[in-house]
Amino acid sequence: MRVGFLGPAGTFTEEALRASAPGPVEEVPYATVHEAIMAVQDGHADRAVVPIENSLEGSVTATLDALAADAADVRIVLEVVRPITHCLIGRAGTGLDEVRRVVSHPQAIAQCEGFLRARLPAAEVTPATSTAEAVRTVADSTEPWAALGSRLAAELYGAPVLAEGVEDRPGNETRFVWLAPAAAAAAAPEATKTSIVFWGPGDRTPGALVGVLRELSGRAINLTKIESRPRRLGLGHYLFFLDLDGGEHDPPVAAALEALAGRVESLRVLGSYPSA
Amino acid sequence: MRVGFLGPAGTFTEEALRASAPGPVEEVPYATVHEAIMAVQDGHADRAVVPIENSLEGSVTATLDALAADAADVRIVLEVVRPITHCLIGRAGTGLDEVRRVVSHPQAIAQCEGFLRARLPAAEVTPATSTAEAVRTVADSTEPWAALGSRLAAELYGAPVLAEGVEDRPGNETRFVWLAPAAAAAAAPEATKTSIVFWGPGDRTPGALVGVLRELSGRAINLTKIESRPRRLGLGHYLFFLDLDGGEHDPPVAAALEALAGRVESLRVLGSYPSA
Repeated sequence: MRVGFLGPAGTFTEEALRASAPGPVEEVPYATVHEAIMAVQDGHADRAVVPIENSLEGSVTATLDALAADAADVRIVLEVVRPITHCLIGRAGTGLDEVRRVVSHPQAIAQCEGFLRARLPAAEVTPATSTAEAVRTVADSTEPWAALGSRLAAELYGAPVLAEGVEDRPGNETRFVWLAPAAAAAAAPEATKTSIVFWGPGDRTPGALVGVLRELSGRAINLTKIESRPRRLGLGHYLFFLDLDGGEHDPPVAAALEALAGRVESLRVLGSYPSA
Repeated sequence: MRVGFLGPAGTFTEEALRASAPGPVEEVPYATVHEAIMAVQDGHADRAVVPIENSLEGSVTATLDALAADAADVRIVLEVVRPITHCLIGRAGTGLDEVRRVVSHPQAIAQCEGFLRARLPAAEVTPATSTAEAVRTVADSTEPWAALGSRLAAELYGAPVLAEGVEDRPGNETRFVWLAPAAAAAAAPEATKTSIVFWGPGDRTPGALVGVLRELSGRAINLTKIESRPRRLGLGHYLFFLDLDGGEHDPPVAAALEALAGRVESLRVLGSYPSA
């Protein structure tokens, strides 16, 4: 089984993939979330693993946007929640006070902002396309640089961990999802969670959204997430992503989805799967 | 008047500032949205201009998070909507097919992804901390690189525009806000829009959110935006940002805000101001 993931080698996504793979798989890195998702849509990969939400930074909007706009034949089949522990990774013998530049993905930089301000105030901060790319850059350099990244990346690129757990807040977790072609992804009988996206009409009125949410509250269906994203029709028009407790074929959820479909312009089930 | 903005010189934010400043002001660039907002909170700047929402990419989460978490004494006093037209900016005499690297802020790269795939498929894409920083990098380099950025940045850094309007979709607009100290920001009599943030309790149940939204729909108050952001208490707990039609002291809005305050754990008015 070919499993695409947000690469390069050593990302937190690859850590999540390895922690949740059902058995030996062929791991295929992709440069962006969009490319990993489209590999499943286009049949180049059997599955993909991508991040969808972080407890500090919120939704991974590239994942939501690709699922809604470009990957109509891809479904979520599993979610995996993993703690995110950032390491400061540098060169052997470098002290924290000698680090002149810190390289990482902007989200990792944001998650470690307090640590960087307090401990490395003079270091220049440089963005990278991924935490793993940052570790590779630092491992290949002879400069006194450091990267924020995973322990897996430090191991893969042979760079020492200078400090571990440098994120500002405890409880930093990321929710990753496994994606599969819709044809191979009928709702599992053990599904306990359903993800949907809908839009219009009336997406500028609270009355429309109240009507939608009452289809859920009236059936005692819990909402575990609600997120809006631009419809790309101009400011003020949104898609809504909802995660619901319950499988797609559980009678209350199935009835709510049918009622919702009658209220909105478009409704898609993004997946129904066991809750993490 | 000292007006902070998301710098460096030549950002789209500076374009918006210049287009909407009430008269001559002292422009002070800050490296991040967070720093620009905190300059107002801490009294180092009289005003700040920051982006809050883009029609394609959605909310600027750094702005929402700073307003909710760190800048309790800062209010929105004005919004400005500006079209965003990206230029490909390079070196004199460089043809598109000679460009080996494209540098820009990840959001600008995302907004021009189709153009880059179609016209510069071989160019390596490198992230920068801002579009203006990207233009400065390219202007200072002797390599065949190009940046995605504003016409203002091309002028300020003396680099030629190779192609204009390279964004994938028309209707690319950004909403910017002017921020002021709360003490200097009583709701304007001409306010026609109010921004609020609230959280808890019951932020995992649609019933709680239905109750909140019904306080608006029951008073025929339109919602122009609803956005969730993590409460940073772990996955599944959110802050909700709402923009409402109507000024904070208009009787229906005032009544709705009072009713809302009784339903949630915390409610803050982020500002009440003339709609763009």
